[in-house]
Amino acid sequence: MSTEEKWRQLVIEKRKRRDDAIPKAWILPNHPPDLLDVTHIPEQCGLLSTLEIQITNSPVEVLLANLANATWSAVAVTTAFAKRAVIAHQLTNCLTEIFIDRALERAAWLDEQLKSTGRVVGPLHGLPISLKDQVSVKGIESTMGYVSWIGQYAERNSVLADILEEQGAVLYVKTNIPQTLMWAETFNHVFGRTSNPYNRSLTSGGSSGGEGALVALKGSPIGVGSDIGGSIRIPSAFNGLYGFRPSFNRIPYAGSVNSMEGQDAIPSVLGPMTTSIEGVKKFMTSVLAAKPWNRDPIALRKQWDEDAYNLIEHGKCEEPLCFGILWNDGMVHPHPPIIRALEMVKNALLAKGHRVIDWEPFKHMEIYENSRRIYGAVGREDFQAATASTGEPIISSMTTEYDDYAVSGIVRPEVDSGVEVPEMRPFAGQPPLSAFELWGVHKKRQDLRREYLEHWQGTASRTGTGRPVDAIISPVASSAAPPHGMNRLAVYTWIWNNLDYPAVVIPVTRVDQELDVPGPEPEFFGDLDRTVHKFYTPERFGNAPVSVQIVGRTQEDEAVIRMGDIIDKAMKLVVL
Amino acid sequence: MSTEEKWRQLVIEKRKRRDDAIPKAWILPNHPPDLLDVTHIPEQCGLLSTLEIQITNSPVEVLLANLANATWSAVAVTTAFAKRAVIAHQLTNCLTEIFIDRALERAAWLDEQLKSTGRVVGPLHGLPISLKDQVSVKGIESTMGYVSWIGQYAERNSVLADILEEQGAVLYVKTNIPQTLMWAETFNHVFGRTSNPYNRSLTSGGSSGGEGALVALKGSPIGVGSDIGGSIRIPSAFNGLYGFRPSFNRIPYAGSVNSMEGQDAIPSVLGPMTTSIEGVKKFMTSVLAAKPWNRDPIALRKQWDEDAYNLIEHGKCEEPLCFGILWNDGMVHPHPPIIRALEMVKNALLAKGHRVIDWEPFKHMEIYENSRRIYGAVGREDFQAATASTGEPIISSMTTEYDDYAVSGIVRPEVDSGVEVPEMRPFAGQPPLSAFELWGVHKKRQDLRREYLEHWQGTASRTGTGRPVDAIISPVASSAAPPHGMNRLAVYTWIWNNLDYPAVVIPVTRVDQELDVPGPEPEFFGDLDRTVHKFYTPERFGNAPVSVQIVGRTQEDEAVIRMGDIIDKAMKLVVL
Repeated sequence: MSTEEKWRQLVIEKRKRRDDAIPKAWILPNHPPDLLDVTHIPEQCGLLSTLEIQITNSPVEVLLANLANATWSAVAVTTAFAKRAVIAHQLTNCLTEIFIDRALERAAWLDEQLKSTGRVVGPLHGLPISLKDQVSVKGIESTMGYVSWIGQYAERNSVLADILEEQGAVLYVKTNIPQTLMWAETFNHVFGRTSNPYNRSLTSGGSSGGEGALVALKGSPIGVGSDIGGSIRIPSAFNGLYGFRPSFNRIPYAGSVNSMEGQDAIPSVLGPMTTSIEGVKKFMTSVLAAKPWNRDPIALRKQWDEDAYNLIEHGKCEEPLCFGILWNDGMVHPHPPIIRALEMVKNALLAKGHRVIDWEPFKHMEIYENSRRIYGAVGREDFQAATASTGEPIISSMTTEYDDYAVSGIVRPEVDSGVEVPEMRPFAGQPPLSAFELWGVHKKRQDLRREYLEHWQGTASRTGTGRPVDAIISPVASSAAPPHGMNRLAVYTWIWNNLDYPAVVIPVTRVDQELDVPGPEPEFFGDLDRTVHKFYTPERFGNAPVSVQIVGRTQEDEAVIRMGDIIDKAMKLVVL
Repeated sequence: MSTEEKWRQLVIEKRKRRDDAIPKAWILPNHPPDLLDVTHIPEQCGLLSTLEIQITNSPVEVLLANLANATWSAVAVTTAFAKRAVIAHQLTNCLTEIFIDRALERAAWLDEQLKSTGRVVGPLHGLPISLKDQVSVKGIESTMGYVSWIGQYAERNSVLADILEEQGAVLYVKTNIPQTLMWAETFNHVFGRTSNPYNRSLTSGGSSGGEGALVALKGSPIGVGSDIGGSIRIPSAFNGLYGFRPSFNRIPYAGSVNSMEGQDAIPSVLGPMTTSIEGVKKFMTSVLAAKPWNRDPIALRKQWDEDAYNLIEHGKCEEPLCFGILWNDGMVHPHPPIIRALEMVKNALLAKGHRVIDWEPFKHMEIYENSRRIYGAVGREDFQAATASTGEPIISSMTTEYDDYAVSGIVRPEVDSGVEVPEMRPFAGQPPLSAFELWGVHKKRQDLRREYLEHWQGTASRTGTGRPVDAIISPVASSAAPPHGMNRLAVYTWIWNNLDYPAVVIPVTRVDQELDVPGPEPEFFGDLDRTVHKFYTPERFGNAPVSVQIVGRTQEDEAVIRMGDIIDKAMKLVVL
């Protein structure tokens, strides 16, 4: 067999193992393979009972309340979400590992515990939680989309998996990612591509794109993603979810697998993707209550700070807040639906008596370039090491030309060729650095971070609150979810990774064919900006969710979540 | 002029600038140049009044109380310490920058503020604080011991200098360091060598060795040092001081200069060196109260945690503590005075009802090697860049052969030649790494840190308290201060830097010619251990202070300081 035949064979076997884990009774009846919007399928396919639909449509806080008072058993909740996850998978190809039997055993044990002791096992009692493929669970593979990693069964739980289980969660599926994790789409040789349930010709984003599609279809009430440059926030935005990028080392990463390990300057972080802001808070408080610093040596020794959540340094929830709106980053003008979303948020906040000023971007291009040098510091060496044993190719583009379409749930986009798309790759065209060069990049980064902080603090003279801007309201991306293979920019997310600013994504609207017509040409920042502008048509982004992110300063996680809640409530009050 | 003549000329001019800043009236009357122990000279030289002696002999907490109630004016306190600092300098060559006029102006302003408002400016009102040369003060040079940096006047205060001044401190002198900062002694071409006031044929340690000698002679009540591998703790131990290495990024570093910038894996930290444990606490609470995270983007957003200080997770100051004593690290047996100090601490703790178990070293050699690869990752490139403009030589040994002895305060050690001394240099013999190799070293480090934490948590079964060991009691070095040029080991300190464990140094005793006779040969761990063992004679370390360090887990700063206080009190009660 040729090298390719060999690794293709491994893929076939692996996919079969995955598919065999799907109960036959949960195979989806026929549905139109060209259907773009599949968000209604789970409720209409006939596989879910009324109760299962009610359960799976409930956000985390409702689920936890009904689990704690035994209205719903953990077995019932796990069954419902497992079933809906498998449905979601058949629609979007979002799952990598399926371990429902094990989950049901655990759910039964949790029910037994509650019955016999009258007490929940922990604050997440009975809650199904899906995991990005990276998060190791004992006995389950973490292939990370590398053919070469097929067969790597975890010998122990990651710290986060341990903590989630101790706090009462039920782990049942893992979700798809791009090879190397360094793409804002989701495609790899092992599992293929994940689609966006709102429009399957669009990407679900990445790198936590499996999680994004799964949670959007309510196949999971809350999933764990990871974010090194936008990988939680982009799929959260593209799939209409609440997603949170915590500050570095707040949520324990130890024991999860990763690419580019040892790249400690802008580390990846784990965080939640869910359907309510309450879900975000519940995840954070539950994980921190387990004191992750006693198991992960780089986890911050910092409990959940309820004072910070009550905005003790931001007017104590009594005074108006002042937000800075980033209308553009000085590199790329966002598309019309994104601007409309920012305006909706602005109006909602003004209506609630809050203040809003323009956020002036500060050296975003320099910060972007600095990140690029860090992410690309070793060229392809890391990925070569990960793929060497089978010789599988390193994926150098997310375009669909490499797809085998052997997996279901993908609708090939029609705009795949002949369209100029922006291209900014994290690790293309840069020779590997020496350690000394890398230190120089790190030093430059610290300088930029200090300047940015001073820029932020300097807004105190403009807010009218006596404080600097309380948070920034920023696009998550310059566009909504684009067609497969066309999502090549992450400038609006990875700027905040470089600065280590926590950010929560709030869904706002969807692309509207009438409201979001292309506007007049702005004064372009450059060719990239022009290309991005020309790429926009409302049709191309049909039905795609549109979101914003709320950004705070380093380790302001609690305050950012609270301000996200304030904005979310303001939006619901005014807009809906 | 030759290259050497040129840079020597710069040195002459720089030293003259420094010396011109010393008031003529404060020039020390003749004292025997060969005198070894000069600790009594400041009080006996006739330059200090009785009140000035009383002031300068007072620890931080007494000074602050008397300053706050105006018993002592800031001008009187500043004058007394400035005078004693200049005396200390003439005895040990500890100062690099002297700016007394500016300090007295500020002290007068502080006195005026207190008088007119009835309130102190801040918690450090009127307290003189000395600074390691790195800590930038507007308008003052930071040469860092590089001839090439002569004339680099800071354009703005470092964040820490700003905060100290806001909190009421008076800055007045900066102190000596080794070129590159990467030595545990203090010698550079600009300022020469700093001696140990307890025995001037011994090193004051390093890299904060100027600070060590200055505070030991009570020329400063509290100094700021920095510690990347022991640079606060070694000079604190060698000079009989309390010194604290905080966790990474607890005390703001932004705006201070450094060598090896961009080496972010095991960053240097700033911390206090002083004459009481109360002084350590006061420094930490005062700096953190200023919210350094609003100015330094990498400073942890974490206030002083009084609960942690009250040992909320360590028996709440109500239950006995259990300490693990590191008798040796499996690489080098400590010298007899060090073992005696550990035994004194052990007995004092047992007498107070605390528990003590042996701490088993865990992969200390591997952690040491990992640190060495990080510190040495760029070979000499960083130092070459820093010295290139003048062509001054990079110092490759701390032996006295390079000394010009043009500066006072140095007594040439008699054991300088013909003695085999251990040699473990941080950046010798290692080729520069690529960024990919460096990432590999970082990854290995994270693995080791996790294993070490699990090793720590695993002691819960042996302590009898239900908790893991509350803190480790460790040697600070395998020896007390050795003769100049002979301090080439830092294995007992930099292990904790790699793990990011905070550590406070507590003075215990001094080398005793009768009690500390060489013991029988232990079973050597290797040649290095044998060499270290043979190097010991009580005479060679005559009069040298002996200390221990108390080590906690990452970010347990508050608890470590409190346990240091408990041990310090136990020692004073039982031993003195």
